[in-house]
Amino acid sequence: MSEALDHSTVDHAMQPDDTPELRELYRGFEKQSLLPLWTQLGDLMPVHPKSRAVPHVWKWSKLLPLAERSGELVPVGRGGERRAIGLSNPGLAPHAYISPTLWAAIQYLGPREVAPEHRHSQNAFRFVVEGEGVWTVVNGDPVRMSRGDLLLTPGGNFHGHQNVTDKSMAWIDGLDIPFSQQMDVGFFEFGSDKLTCLETPEFSRGERLWCHPGLRPLSQLKDSVSSPIGAYRWAHTDAALTQQLALEAEGYAATVAPGHAAIRYINPTTGGDVMPTIRLEFHRLREGTETKMRRDVGSTVFQVFEGNGAVVMDGETHSVEKGDMFVVPSWIPWSLRAETGFDLFRFSDAPIMEKLGFMRSWVDA
Amino acid sequence: MSEALDHSTVDHAMQPDDTPELRELYRGFEKQSLLPLWTQLGDLMPVHPKSRAVPHVWKWSKLLPLAERSGELVPVGRGGERRAIGLSNPGLAPHAYISPTLWAAIQYLGPREVAPEHRHSQNAFRFVVEGEGVWTVVNGDPVRMSRGDLLLTPGGNFHGHQNVTDKSMAWIDGLDIPFSQQMDVGFFEFGSDKLTCLETPEFSRGERLWCHPGLRPLSQLKDSVSSPIGAYRWAHTDAALTQQLALEAEGYAATVAPGHAAIRYINPTTGGDVMPTIRLEFHRLREGTETKMRRDVGSTVFQVFEGNGAVVMDGETHSVEKGDMFVVPSWIPWSLRAETGFDLFRFSDAPIMEKLGFMRSWVDA
Amino acid sequence: MSEALDHSTVDHAMQPDDTPELRELYRGFEKQSLLPLWTQLGDLMPVHPKSRAVPHVWKWSKLLPLAERSGELVPVGRGGERRAIGLSNPGLAPHAYISPTLWAAIQYLGPREVAPEHRHSQNAFRFVVEGEGVWTVVNGDPVRMSRGDLLLTPGGNFHGHQNVTDKSMAWIDGLDIPFSQQMDVGFFEFGSDKLTCLETPEFSRGERLWCHPGLRPLSQLKDSVSSPIGAYRWAHTDAALTQQLALEAEGYAATVAPGHAAIRYINPTTGGDVMPTIRLEFHRLREGTETKMRRDVGSTVFQVFEGNGAVVMDGETHSVEKGDMFVVPSWIPWSLRAETGFDLFRFSDAPIMEKLGFMRSWVDA
Amino acid sequence: MSEALDHSTVDHAMQPDDTPELRELYRGFEKQSLLPLWTQLGDLMPVHPKSRAVPHVWKWSKLLPLAERSGELVPVGRGGERRAIGLSNPGLAPHAYISPTLWAAIQYLGPREVAPEHRHSQNAFRFVVEGEGVWTVVNGDPVRMSRGDLLLTPGGNFHGHQNVTDKSMAWIDGLDIPFSQQMDVGFFEFGSDKLTCLETPEFSRGERLWCHPGLRPLSQLKDSVSSPIGAYRWAHTDAALTQQLALEAEGYAATVAPGHAAIRYINPTTGGDVMPTIRLEFHRLREGTETKMRRDVGSTVFQVFEGNGAVVMDGETHSVEKGDMFVVPSWIPWSLRAETGFDLFRFSDAPIMEKLGFMRSWVDA
Repeated sequence: MSEALDHSTVDHAMQPDDTPELRELYRGFEKQSLLPLWTQLGDLMPVHPKSRAVPHVWKWSKLLPLAERSGELVPVGRGGERRAIGLSNPGLAPHAYISPTLWAAIQYLGPREVAPEHRHSQNAFRFVVEGEGVWTVVNGDPVRMSRGDLLLTPGGNFHGHQNVTDKSMAWIDGLDIPFSQQMDVGFFEFGSDKLTCLETPEFSRGERLWCHPGLRPLSQLKDSVSSPIGAYRWAHTDAALTQQLALEAEGYAATVAPGHAAIRYINPTTGGDVMPTIRLEFHRLREGTETKMRRDVGSTVFQVFEGNGAVVMDGETHSVEKGDMFVVPSWIPWSLRAETGFDLFRFSDAPIMEKLGFMRSWVDA
Repeated sequence: MSEALDHSTVDHAMQPDDTPELRELYRGFEKQSLLPLWTQLGDLMPVHPKSRAVPHVWKWSKLLPLAERSGELVPVGRGGERRAIGLSNPGLAPHAYISPTLWAAIQYLGPREVAPEHRHSQNAFRFVVEGEGVWTVVNGDPVRMSRGDLLLTPGGNFHGHQNVTDKSMAWIDGLDIPFSQQMDVGFFEFGSDKLTCLETPEFSRGERLWCHPGLRPLSQLKDSVSSPIGAYRWAHTDAALTQQLALEAEGYAATVAPGHAAIRYINPTTGGDVMPTIRLEFHRLREGTETKMRRDVGSTVFQVFEGNGAVVMDGETHSVEKGDMFVVPSWIPWSLRAETGFDLFRFSDAPIMEKLGFMRSWVDA
Repeated sequence: MSEALDHSTVDHAMQPDDTPELRELYRGFEKQSLLPLWTQLGDLMPVHPKSRAVPHVWKWSKLLPLAERSGELVPVGRGGERRAIGLSNPGLAPHAYISPTLWAAIQYLGPREVAPEHRHSQNAFRFVVEGEGVWTVVNGDPVRMSRGDLLLTPGGNFHGHQNVTDKSMAWIDGLDIPFSQQMDVGFFEFGSDKLTCLETPEFSRGERLWCHPGLRPLSQLKDSVSSPIGAYRWAHTDAALTQQLALEAEGYAATVAPGHAAIRYINPTTGGDVMPTIRLEFHRLREGTETKMRRDVGSTVFQVFEGNGAVVMDGETHSVEKGDMFVVPSWIPWSLRAETGFDLFRFSDAPIMEKLGFMRSWVDA
Repeated sequence: MSEALDHSTVDHAMQPDDTPELRELYRGFEKQSLLPLWTQLGDLMPVHPKSRAVPHVWKWSKLLPLAERSGELVPVGRGGERRAIGLSNPGLAPHAYISPTLWAAIQYLGPREVAPEHRHSQNAFRFVVEGEGVWTVVNGDPVRMSRGDLLLTPGGNFHGHQNVTDKSMAWIDGLDIPFSQQMDVGFFEFGSDKLTCLETPEFSRGERLWCHPGLRPLSQLKDSVSSPIGAYRWAHTDAALTQQLALEAEGYAATVAPGHAAIRYINPTTGGDVMPTIRLEFHRLREGTETKMRRDVGSTVFQVFEGNGAVVMDGETHSVEKGDMFVVPSWIPWSLRAETGFDLFRFSDAPIMEKLGFMRSWVDA
């Protein structure tokens, strides 16, 4: 649709004259819990998405010390449940929403600490940018957390964490809390205060059952809404990206654009997104690669995994490095630039937009 | 999930001691646009949906005079676009949201008036509880509006209205504006200031092509996200409900419960909901019928089409009659009781909840 | 794929020399139940489908007297089950297959006769080109049979017939018997010797529940593999086709080609074909209309319902009139020509071809 | 459905008396290419599937020498295309069909031989029970063939083979030739006489792109009817089965039955079968394990990959060992018994039966 007209201007030009009769009418509206469309159309129905959320960057060098200090001052346990610190979009304050749909937080677990088990409707994942030594127990299945690993706890699964080492560990959590809260869909339930399984195997049972490429256990033929894979290991992600760039170098189509390798994490029972509301991807840019400026309906969050580069959002350039996170709200133009080899973890609300028919994208020619 | 624990109580019991160090930490959070989970968990992740929206009833006898008075004081035309007065849930003020996802309004068009054409991403419908004489033109196809008719204008379709008589007409509009606004998905575009087709046929071209039961035009084999039917006529709805009650009386399964006939309006290309975000239904209760108390994730709105009865919401009973509208927010227990034969039009956000895996219901045994 | 090479020629040119050693080898194959690919490749894997089935026309003026004579000589009842006379493709003799997948028969029921109930895996339908007075009882639901009506008895449904008049009646049956027999999928079970319901209502209960355009009973939300509609009435089919031609005359897109209206019968729970193996359609050509020559994978059968015209199959023109039936085997080029207004009922095995990924079509430019 | 009645008996009891008039009628039928249902109902519509195909075992010790002898006597090249020897079900002679839907063959390629490129609608796979040294080139992508590997060449993909060693190699081919031939769906096209790529990489490009568990290349988001994976490697299959049995030993649900591990090869874009007509699986039984007797609609073929055991088909026990193949026709009762650890590759036509609504199974309690 064209955006030639400045809608709000047109809008205001058309308001009826402010007369005593009109005021009387508006008072009548108020008494009956009514609000006219004509006084607020520009806000309710803008010419294109104009999010209150703003593009923003959080520096890992600022986040991590605050998380460590929280480890000293704030206990973890039943009630608060998690020592998680949410990234709050400046445009959405006082809510701890990184975007209208997504929650992102840094979670911190000190040596030998345990975060008790609970479950909720909200879909969740963890991504590990550095560290090791924590196991997440999902429905009794312990899942090791190591650098580069993605862990899933889709809605409805009990989960808790334990740090089995003498070192602390921090990672990021992603959830659909803002969507769930605004849309009134969430249920929450406490589980065991202690973890239901204290083992610390290298691979979870879910991985052992499911992580064989192109092979499905014959005992698991029922498709599931969310992925049955508890952990997507860095070794696989790294290998997939490495192969894409190698194939490109050999002259074969494998990347999304020259110098730009990327994978989407999928639910092996359907080939689609791992959870109903959250899309998860990993992107690797060769040194010097720049992506095309684009806009998409919906919001997306990145965390730099390795390397240095920059993101341009709404015309402003931000340098980013390992651990830094940034959010791109709906319809904000953005692009990436790799100064070194540049690895980025990404999540977004694209499944919501696609399933409900609202997805639209614009890519610079 | 059990609801035995009062989450917010547990929550507050667990806050760390208020020390200077903690205050310093919290100031650090604020400076970095961070918010801890542990201070707000009960709000972010309640044990079950606790909507800010409240159950509420709007009386047609109050709505209609205010709409008529608007007809005298407020012009309709480019800019304001529609003389539509939104039902604003008292719990969601100052937004004109009837629920966190849905917009409902009474729209009023005076004799010979025209509402200009536009289109938007938001999905819309009209339902006519009384009156006639207006045609809605959807992508150039004029659709008559008469009592009991449901008209669709799914996202992306140009539409305008004209009243071809000397009498005014009022009807209700339903849209997914609150969802679209909060999720940042909406686009809006002006169309022709005048209607692109001034004809006033009894049946739209879409109906002539599509409204033959079980028959699909061979030229229309591509499934569409939204229904290609522009109007669902009262004669068909009434016949379907009449037959269900007749079959029940003859001893055959046809109703959803004894004395309770109901149809869902569907997209004939898929057999599913007519639009990606909004479910539309019509319910008919025999005199004396009472529905079971139930709770559902998501919100729903009813308009009484004919007859007298009551709705119980969250323990409170409200008498309702022709034209009255009421909203049931997420997880609020509700039931209906028919004092006479009782006909109700209904819409809800259930497709959102179902597609994203959040639907859950509880029905009294 | 190109068809430049004459495969069978190439084939034979490559056979190994006929030596005693080769003969010995071939005897070894035979003893071990083996057959070499190289001696039969051209038959097993032709360059394009080369059906043993041939294009063929059956004249109603020949079929009906033989059916009537059968009525005098052959009883109907348990064992033989139906007085049905199958159209046997001359290329597929001695099988009563009209094509490799489809069975077509004329069935005849004398005054007051009853065909007992049974059920089977095979999907079946009846189409009535003339006559009336018979009811088909499907799972206890009596369905009137009148000129132009299509009746379904999908696999697994008990069904029987009764003629309640003093006049005989003939109609056509279509089934997937050849597919079922060759693929070994069929089960068969006797039901009641007498009909389980002797009522003769104008409309079946299935129609009363389901035949309201765009409306789905709320008690019937589970999608079914086959259509729940027992009868597709001529009045609806005729109206749909009439409207398509009227819309075309008014300048709107509605037909599949100029002068060519057509509908597909669909399962209202999915918008797709009425049964898993058989596609059903009705076509109407204006006087003078000629369709483009085309080829499709899979076979199709037509019955002329009204009017005069011709079908060209594999270069040969056949004049056809009311009641005449013809079969077009896989990949045979065909077109239709209307000398008067020309109405044709059609069925095919296209759902098999589409679901298994084998559908391919070619249409003359 | 019950099978209490012997249908053919009932059938014959009901034939009309053999009179001159009846004979005259039957002559009339014949002249008009008609065949009555009542004389053949028992064959056309049996009470349960009664396949002409019979259970049969082929011994690898007999197959391999015949294949080797063919290597000496029969050239491979354009025209005959492949030195493939089809397993011909004794009940389906003179067709080289192992079942009504499936073709199975042993293919043999001598030292340094090349089988030229071609493509066809028929879906094909190869499975390697022993040997190495051959590469299959699929659309220009060379795929190594080694023991335990499954290779796919779905319909429409060009493919050829080359043996790059001084040793011969034999493997099995599986296709849907019988289905394609009987249903008239096949196209065939010659490709390059020489292979389009002579490289012999350890892993094909398709594997490098796709074989990372749970990861999908972002450049490959369009679902495909058939799997994009060219080879499913034995190392993965073996690991998956080993893990299932290990998990079972640790007390977790992972196998289909005690002592019975199994995987299905899947299309990673959908999570479903790798090709539209053929299901592929691998089964591993612990020593001493016996499977429940069962019957299924559709036919299935096994090849013993390793170990010794027996198959019971229709009450008869057959000892089988490495390389032996056997076919179970539709609705024939069968079970397996492992004398040692027992590994079996399996393929079947189950996707056809499931997609067309004909699948039915019976398992002994």
